[in-house]
Amino acid sequence: MDRGTTESDLIELLRSGSGASARLDVGIGDDAAVTLPGGATATSVDAVVEGVHFRTEWSPPEAVAHKALATALSDLAAMAAEPGEVYVTLGIPSGTSDGYLEDLAAGFMTAADKFGTVLAGGDTVSSPVLFAAVTVVGHASAAAEFVLRSGAAPGEVVAVTGRLGGAAAGLWLLENDATAVDGLDSADRAPLIDRQLRPSPRLYAGRVLGRLGATAMVDVSDGLARDLGHVAEMSDVAITCDARMVPAQTGVAAVESAAGRAPQDFALGGGEDYELAVTLPGSDFKPASEALRALDLDLTAIGRVIEGTGFDLVDEDGQRDMPTGFDHLG
Amino acid sequence: MDRGTTESDLIELLRSGSGASARLDVGIGDDAAVTLPGGATATSVDAVVEGVHFRTEWSPPEAVAHKALATALSDLAAMAAEPGEVYVTLGIPSGTSDGYLEDLAAGFMTAADKFGTVLAGGDTVSSPVLFAAVTVVGHASAAAEFVLRSGAAPGEVVAVTGRLGGAAAGLWLLENDATAVDGLDSADRAPLIDRQLRPSPRLYAGRVLGRLGATAMVDVSDGLARDLGHVAEMSDVAITCDARMVPAQTGVAAVESAAGRAPQDFALGGGEDYELAVTLPGSDFKPASEALRALDLDLTAIGRVIEGTGFDLVDEDGQRDMPTGFDHLG
Repeated sequence: MDRGTTESDLIELLRSGSGASARLDVGIGDDAAVTLPGGATATSVDAVVEGVHFRTEWSPPEAVAHKALATALSDLAAMAAEPGEVYVTLGIPSGTSDGYLEDLAAGFMTAADKFGTVLAGGDTVSSPVLFAAVTVVGHASAAAEFVLRSGAAPGEVVAVTGRLGGAAAGLWLLENDATAVDGLDSADRAPLIDRQLRPSPRLYAGRVLGRLGATAMVDVSDGLARDLGHVAEMSDVAITCDARMVPAQTGVAAVESAAGRAPQDFALGGGEDYELAVTLPGSDFKPASEALRALDLDLTAIGRVIEGTGFDLVDEDGQRDMPTGFDHLG
Repeated sequence: MDRGTTESDLIELLRSGSGASARLDVGIGDDAAVTLPGGATATSVDAVVEGVHFRTEWSPPEAVAHKALATALSDLAAMAAEPGEVYVTLGIPSGTSDGYLEDLAAGFMTAADKFGTVLAGGDTVSSPVLFAAVTVVGHASAAAEFVLRSGAAPGEVVAVTGRLGGAAAGLWLLENDATAVDGLDSADRAPLIDRQLRPSPRLYAGRVLGRLGATAMVDVSDGLARDLGHVAEMSDVAITCDARMVPAQTGVAAVESAAGRAPQDFALGGGEDYELAVTLPGSDFKPASEALRALDLDLTAIGRVIEGTGFDLVDEDGQRDMPTGFDHLG
């Protein structure tokens, strides 16, 4: 509220490019956005902060906007929600150029559109550090369609979409300015960095899994141990995964080796990959994996839900301590 | 997502104290909150940042939480919305003590309850500066019940609730560490500072005005000129107010004089008072003001909606330039 004309200009810019939907009755420009939801609504909030979740020297404004929206929408993917409206509050340092702000606003509009959402509201405030706080709202025709963390039952399979470890490997490459890594094919380098800077929320895959038997779901943001630990706790079960079965993104092993980390460390504990970890009855695994295959996305069984509490990881040596989540940037 | 145990503890703390409502199906702790809205929904986002919107040396954590929620909910008041759910993302510097975080979390729970809302979700992120980004969701049985900025029509009365200028006067007293101001009764000092640190969103008054004829409404956050300027623009009308009729909070005139400001400067341009400015047909003014009187709140006619564009202020000299909004803190 304290950038005066700049705020009005930015809101005008956001409004001119903001989308429309049957559900959005009044968009940007009034005191609040008005929606006509019907059914049930899933709402999640998140924020990215310069120097903590992104660095402007690595991320152009378009990538900042992409990551801010993607990480927030990943929570809706894990609910099996239909993506709906997004709201963005930007904290803007006084020295920020108009060009940067325009690119950032354009980035949010592009990303909102790409992810099938409508930018329904926003605000800007002065801040000594650049940040973007994002609220995302998803929908379902009934609350029972959402997949919570609390539905896992003993006997079910634990699976993950896609491949893990890429975000942590990409971060290591950025932080170490590593131009050549032994055993890392140059073609595999950019996808690792891209996973760190421009993750993809698995919105469609989440809805497919929700319809094909998912009993509990979470996005892999903090690392498998912590994320599946939440599922175990909220479902009042134990989850055991086999470290060797966790699929790693191509090139991750080479970066783990260059970084002096144990094999699978990034895949198991890196987080920030924004894939989905899901529990489902064994009989539902094959149909679900075939449906995701049609989306060019793997679904890999990595463990079992059993009676008990907590998350355990086993490898050929039996038990193994998991990294409990990395410190990401900063 | 990067404060580890502290985040879980804080979310646990928030969850343990978070309220429940028939509309909130799943609250804090899953990937997203699930609501069953029905009707129509108004959503607004806002943020407060340390050093910009509050200073920790002036505001204890309870007041930070109060102001963060109050300023966001003020937008719902201006929609005539029934307050519903609130979501809070906290940016937390690494040196913040656990005691401060507990007080801040407790402050949000207390404020959410006081304002008749349910704390439905939250997140914490590391940040070099303390901030609170707040999303508020309000409801109505139909979208037509919300009062937008675009409904003012020529011939209508412009009115404000309560009394203005207190927030700017309170800020001046804080910034100048002023213990004695000529003509300021000591009993009037604390309410001025309170208006700056703990504003009250006019949620109930907004709904009363919505039922009793309000055609357009906005909260006084940036100063009358800018806020009513939005109404004029979006309603495609002109608004003219009489500076002498704008009601000032008791003690504001003495502080304006001590600050070397023209009479009514704080009341007309200070902003941050979070009163409501409303347009309504002349015949609805008396019933509306009587209804607010029962709430111990004044409704004062300050101007007229006419054909044309823009906002004008007149006083005994005719036209007068308005301050276009202050720079608040920082």
